[in-house]
Amino acid sequence: MKRIMMRVAYLGTAYCGWQIQPNGLSIEQVLNENLSDLLGEDIKVIGASRTDAGVHALGNVAVFDTNARMPGDKISFALNQRLPEDIVIRGSKEVSPDFHPRRTLSIKTYEYRILNATFNNPLRAYFTCFNYMKLEEDLMREGAAYLVGEHDFSSFCAPRSQAESFVRTVYSIDIERLGEEISILIKGNGFLYNMVRIIAGTLMEVGRGAYKPEDVKKILEAKDRTKAGPTAPAQGLTLMSIEFKQ
Amino acid sequence: MKRIMMRVAYLGTAYCGWQIQPNGLSIEQVLNENLSDLLGEDIKVIGASRTDAGVHALGNVAVFDTNARMPGDKISFALNQRLPEDIVIRGSKEVSPDFHPRRTLSIKTYEYRILNATFNNPLRAYFTCFNYMKLEEDLMREGAAYLVGEHDFSSFCAPRSQAESFVRTVYSIDIERLGEEISILIKGNGFLYNMVRIIAGTLMEVGRGAYKPEDVKKILEAKDRTKAGPTAPAQGLTLMSIEFKQ
Repeated sequence: MKRIMMRVAYLGTAYCGWQIQPNGLSIEQVLNENLSDLLGEDIKVIGASRTDAGVHALGNVAVFDTNARMPGDKISFALNQRLPEDIVIRGSKEVSPDFHPRRTLSIKTYEYRILNATFNNPLRAYFTCFNYMKLEEDLMREGAAYLVGEHDFSSFCAPRSQAESFVRTVYSIDIERLGEEISILIKGNGFLYNMVRIIAGTLMEVGRGAYKPEDVKKILEAKDRTKAGPTAPAQGLTLMSIEFKQ
Repeated sequence: MKRIMMRVAYLGTAYCGWQIQPNGLSIEQVLNENLSDLLGEDIKVIGASRTDAGVHALGNVAVFDTNARMPGDKISFALNQRLPEDIVIRGSKEVSPDFHPRRTLSIKTYEYRILNATFNNPLRAYFTCFNYMKLEEDLMREGAAYLVGEHDFSSFCAPRSQAESFVRTVYSIDIERLGEEISILIKGNGFLYNMVRIIAGTLMEVGRGAYKPEDVKKILEAKDRTKAGPTAPAQGLTLMSIEFKQ
């Protein structure tokens, strides 16, 4: 028995999210079915991040155990031949049998993309959140600075979270305008349920002038979800990478 | 009775193309149904370019006649409230009753996008043609230069074309690398069936070294479809704009 780790990229649009659901097709189910067919065993993957419906990934991570003789680094190529075009394995390798992607310290990087234009370009609709109000990225940057560091992020967590602690560390938030799009790149040691989307929703409110940048500090200190901005829609969010500290 | 012109953008992925087909949903059908509902009349649009299945547009043009009292420039806003998110009207206005978008001289601009990388990014799969072989854009530019001007493009036309003349004028072909993507931007006074996709397929062969740039001249002179490269897939193609010479 060996444990294999894979880097997984997907367009989340057609899926009900990572996790298996009774009504809807999940990334996890597609991977389990195709790996089981490929390796002739009942395979169950463990995902590093159970992304929500409509969220994309360029660098999610999944591990699974197998008795198959296929070398770990060849599995990604063989599996890609079977997968639909919206799921791609970027690489696979054998790892230690006790490696668990959710119990290993890691740095996760997410990107949230906003289409800040007057025209809701349908070619960008699957990947961006459309916001036609002029957003000032300087104000957004100023507001975001209050979130960097170790904080209790209760105000930026969906109420149905089962987290035991709301303390997380955000290493950096980089905000950049690329033509009509604004990219919010956020790195942290872990994120609460909907945390990146609530941060994005709050920073959009700052960008359009509904909140002042310094209100972000007050929102953080309130530890109250109702003080923050709305949860930005799923389609703007991409899990870019996970680096494990092993 | 007045004639309305609309600029139409769409993500072609989910559609069987512009033109109404017995088996599949077309852009034309979605526009006809939603305009008929909106205006309370039986509306039939005329498209400037009947794009193929999977081809996208940022600036296709449709006209239709209506007796409705709604001002021409308000129709786009009202129609957008009803359309699915992958079709967006960029604007509408009243035009002369004898304006016909396929019988008026125009300059059309198409973009063909190639993902030239080792990783077939699923977030780009709907918009690009994946080519993992290293493409040299300098060679592609050199080959493309032979196509600029007025030529008989028989070699770059699908056999099932019903065109009466194969002579077209290409005003410019601009090839640019943007990170892992190559953009081929092509302007002309009209394009034969699959012409842009055959040009893209041929230039990819030049880029990877299978043809020499000067072979493009020979292919053009041969007036024989079998001499050119393959037809590049539909999903890399976007109709960017149509400018009418009125």
